[in-house]
Amino acid sequence: MDSEQKSRRALLKTGAALAGGITLGAVGKANAQSANPPTPTSENASPMIHGSKELIEYGQRSKYVTSVRIAHPLGGRPSPDVFGKVFHVASPLQDSVGVITPSSLHYIATTRGSFMPDIDPKLHTLTLHGEVDRPLTLTMDDLKRFPSVTRLHFIECAGNRHNGKQRTVQETHGMTSCSEWTGVLLSTLLKECGLKSSAKWFVAEGAEEVKGASSIPIVKGMDDCLIAYGQNGEALRPQQGFPLRIMVPGFEGIYHTKYLRRIKVTNQFYMNYNEFGHLTREDKELALGERIGPKSVITYPSGTQRLPGPGFYEISGLAWSGGGAVKTVEVSTDGGKKWNRAEFKNTPQRMAHVRFAYPWKWDGTETVIMSRTTDDIGQRQALREEIAEWWKVPFERDYRVPGLDNSVMPWKISKDGSVTNGLA
Amino acid sequence: MDSEQKSRRALLKTGAALAGGITLGAVGKANAQSANPPTPTSENASPMIHGSKELIEYGQRSKYVTSVRIAHPLGGRPSPDVFGKVFHVASPLQDSVGVITPSSLHYIATTRGSFMPDIDPKLHTLTLHGEVDRPLTLTMDDLKRFPSVTRLHFIECAGNRHNGKQRTVQETHGMTSCSEWTGVLLSTLLKECGLKSSAKWFVAEGAEEVKGASSIPIVKGMDDCLIAYGQNGEALRPQQGFPLRIMVPGFEGIYHTKYLRRIKVTNQFYMNYNEFGHLTREDKELALGERIGPKSVITYPSGTQRLPGPGFYEISGLAWSGGGAVKTVEVSTDGGKKWNRAEFKNTPQRMAHVRFAYPWKWDGTETVIMSRTTDDIGQRQALREEIAEWWKVPFERDYRVPGLDNSVMPWKISKDGSVTNGLA
Repeated sequence: MDSEQKSRRALLKTGAALAGGITLGAVGKANAQSANPPTPTSENASPMIHGSKELIEYGQRSKYVTSVRIAHPLGGRPSPDVFGKVFHVASPLQDSVGVITPSSLHYIATTRGSFMPDIDPKLHTLTLHGEVDRPLTLTMDDLKRFPSVTRLHFIECAGNRHNGKQRTVQETHGMTSCSEWTGVLLSTLLKECGLKSSAKWFVAEGAEEVKGASSIPIVKGMDDCLIAYGQNGEALRPQQGFPLRIMVPGFEGIYHTKYLRRIKVTNQFYMNYNEFGHLTREDKELALGERIGPKSVITYPSGTQRLPGPGFYEISGLAWSGGGAVKTVEVSTDGGKKWNRAEFKNTPQRMAHVRFAYPWKWDGTETVIMSRTTDDIGQRQALREEIAEWWKVPFERDYRVPGLDNSVMPWKISKDGSVTNGLA
Repeated sequence: MDSEQKSRRALLKTGAALAGGITLGAVGKANAQSANPPTPTSENASPMIHGSKELIEYGQRSKYVTSVRIAHPLGGRPSPDVFGKVFHVASPLQDSVGVITPSSLHYIATTRGSFMPDIDPKLHTLTLHGEVDRPLTLTMDDLKRFPSVTRLHFIECAGNRHNGKQRTVQETHGMTSCSEWTGVLLSTLLKECGLKSSAKWFVAEGAEEVKGASSIPIVKGMDDCLIAYGQNGEALRPQQGFPLRIMVPGFEGIYHTKYLRRIKVTNQFYMNYNEFGHLTREDKELALGERIGPKSVITYPSGTQRLPGPGFYEISGLAWSGGGAVKTVEVSTDGGKKWNRAEFKNTPQRMAHVRFAYPWKWDGTETVIMSRTTDDIGQRQALREEIAEWWKVPFERDYRVPGLDNSVMPWKISKDGSVTNGLA
C-alpha cells in the first residue's frame, strides 16, 4: 500500500471532519492508483475495442454491463417458461439510475408468450370508427403529420406486487418502467372524426390474437390518451408494440394496447375476450379501479445488495402514481417510526416516475428502510398492514380483487450490511 | 378502391371543413383497410417474431427501423475513413422524435479513430489532486455512494457547422445529442478535497493517448460540471466514455472528457497537447469562447425529405444553447419575412435540447423555412448573413476562428415538395 492509498483509507474512515461533510466511512475494494497516474503511452495504454461498421451505425453497451431482464415470478409462483404461452419479464430496477428506463430493459407483459407480431410499418394502418361522424383510416405517414406531443409516462403491470418471498427489487417491483413517449393525442384524432353524442366508451385493438384490455371511458380518451409511435427518441421497440401503441396514462399496463390497429368508439361498456377472465369488473367499478395507486420503492440499497460498512449512503428509489404527479416522498430508516422528506432528482410529471433520494449515515446497527409517497391529488401510499386483507388473498384469486397492491416495501439491513426482503 | 378508402381520400383532400381543423390535404401511400379490419384468427394473424433468450434479456429495435449514424463530412470535406485515425460520426436527426437521443445513436467525435479504451469498471479509479488540501482516489463503487444528480444535457461538437454543400440535417447538424445524465457534481467532490485558494483552473484527463481538452475555469467546475456514470437510465456507453465522463454543460464537446480518470486542479491556465493545435486560445479568451451559442434546426421537413403535397404539416425541430435554457423559438415559413412563435414539446432545461413545433399549412408554392432561438440570458441565434465573415473562412482555418457557427439553417421547399439545403 503506497502513501496515497493510506491517505485515502484514512480519509474515508475518519471523514467526519471533512469540509464537505460526506463520510463514506467504509472503503470499497481498493484499486486506488497514485495521485499521479502514469501518463499513457503506447506501452501502457488501455486495451482497445476495435469499432466495427455495426458499432459505428448503432452502438451497444459495454461487455462489462450485464444487467438483464428476468422472467418475473408473479406473486411468488415459480418463474413461468418465458418461451411458453404467457410471460412477464421484469426490469432490473436494482441497477437503474435516473428516470428513463432504457428501451432494451423495459418490462414486458403479454399473453402471447415470447412471440411478437412482425409488422411492416409501411403496411400498417390505424382505423378509428364506431360512434363517430367520419371514420378514419390512417397510415403511419398520415399519423406522423398530425400535431404531436412528447411526454414522460410510466407503464405498470397490475401483477407488479410484492410479498415476503421475493429477494430483489426486480422481483418485487420490476414490472414498472418509464419512457419518453412521442405520438398524437387520441383527442386530436377523435376531434377529427367527430364524436357522436352516443360515444361513451372506446375499445383499443392490437394485431394480436388475444386482447387483454376492456373498455376505456371516452372521457379518458379525450383527456390524455396518446397514440405513441416514438419511445426514448426513436421508434417504439417491437416488445413495446412497434409500430404503434396506445398510452392510457396511469391505467394498469394491460390497457396500453400494443400493435394498435383499431379504436372503436362505443355507446356502451364492452367486454373484451380475455383468456384469464380477470377483467370481470363491471362499468361501475371500472372508471377508477384500473388506475395505479401512489407507489414507491427503494432501489438502492435493495434486496441481495450489501453495504460495505457503516458510513454515508444515498438511499435512492422511484415513485409514481396513476392519479397524477408525485407530490412528496418520505423515507424511514428506523422501520417506520420517523419519516423524512426525500429530495427529487427530476421534476415530477403526471403519471411518470420520479427519482427520489435521501442522504443517510448508517451506524452499522440492524434496521429497516422504506419509502412512501403522496401524489398531487392527495392519495398516500399505504403501509402493508393497512391493506392487510388485500395481500392475504392467495395468488390464484389476485385478479378478482379490486385494487392493486401499492403498499410500502420494507428492506431489512442486517449488521453485516446485507439487505433482504423486510416481509420475509 | 373500396368505399372506405374513397371516403378517406375525400376527407384528407377536402378536410377544410373538418371539425378538428387538421387538413392533411395530401394522401400518403394508400394502405387503408376497411373500417372493420378482419378479426385476427390463426389463419390471418400477423407473422411472428420468436423471442430469443437474448431478446428477453436485452431487447433490440425492429428490423424495419434502419436509421443509422454516418461518418460526418466535416465542413464539406469528403467523409473521413471511420476506421482511420480521426473520425466524427453524426446522429440521424431527420428521424429523431422527442428530446432524448437514443444512446445507440448519440454522435461520436474522437481523436482515436474507431478504437475505444476497453475499461473494466472494477479496476477503474478517478483521482482528484493538485491545488487541493486532500487528494482523493475513488473507485466506481466509492463514487456511486456520493449524492447524485440526474440532468438532461446536450453535447455538441465544435465542428457541427453547416454550409451549402450538405444535403441532410444529419450532415448539417448531426453532431449534437441530448441524454439524461446521472452522476456526481464535481463540486461535491472538490468540496470533499478542499480547494486551496490558489485553485484557478482544472484539467480533465481520460484513459486515452490523445487528450483534446484545454483547461476549464474552476468556477465552471464548482458550478455545474458533472462526473457522469449513467446515461439514459443505464451505464454510459463505451462510445460515450464508459465507465466515466465529465459533463461540462454548454461547453463544446471536446471538453467532455471520456474515460475520465484524473482531475488536476491547477493554479494557472494549462495547455493540453492537441494534435490539431486548434485550442490555441489564451485564458483571456477561453472562459466564454468555448460556450455553444443559441442554436436551432428544423429536423422535419429537412433536406432530402419530401412533402407528399399541399396540406397540413407540423414543422418540428430541436433548439439548445450553451448559455442556459432555451427561452423562445421562432419559425419562418416565408424565407424570413415573418417569424412565428413555436411551441415547446418539453419544458426547456439548462443546456438541454428542447423539441419545438409549429403547425403549418403548405399551399404548394416554393418557399424557405427556418428557425431561430433566443436563450434565457438573452442571446439570439443569428442569421447566416449576420455572421458572414465567419462562414467565409475556409475549413482549414476553422479552428483558429473564435466562436462557433450557430447560424440559422434554411431549408428550401420546392413546388414538388422536395426539401433541399437553402444555402446551396
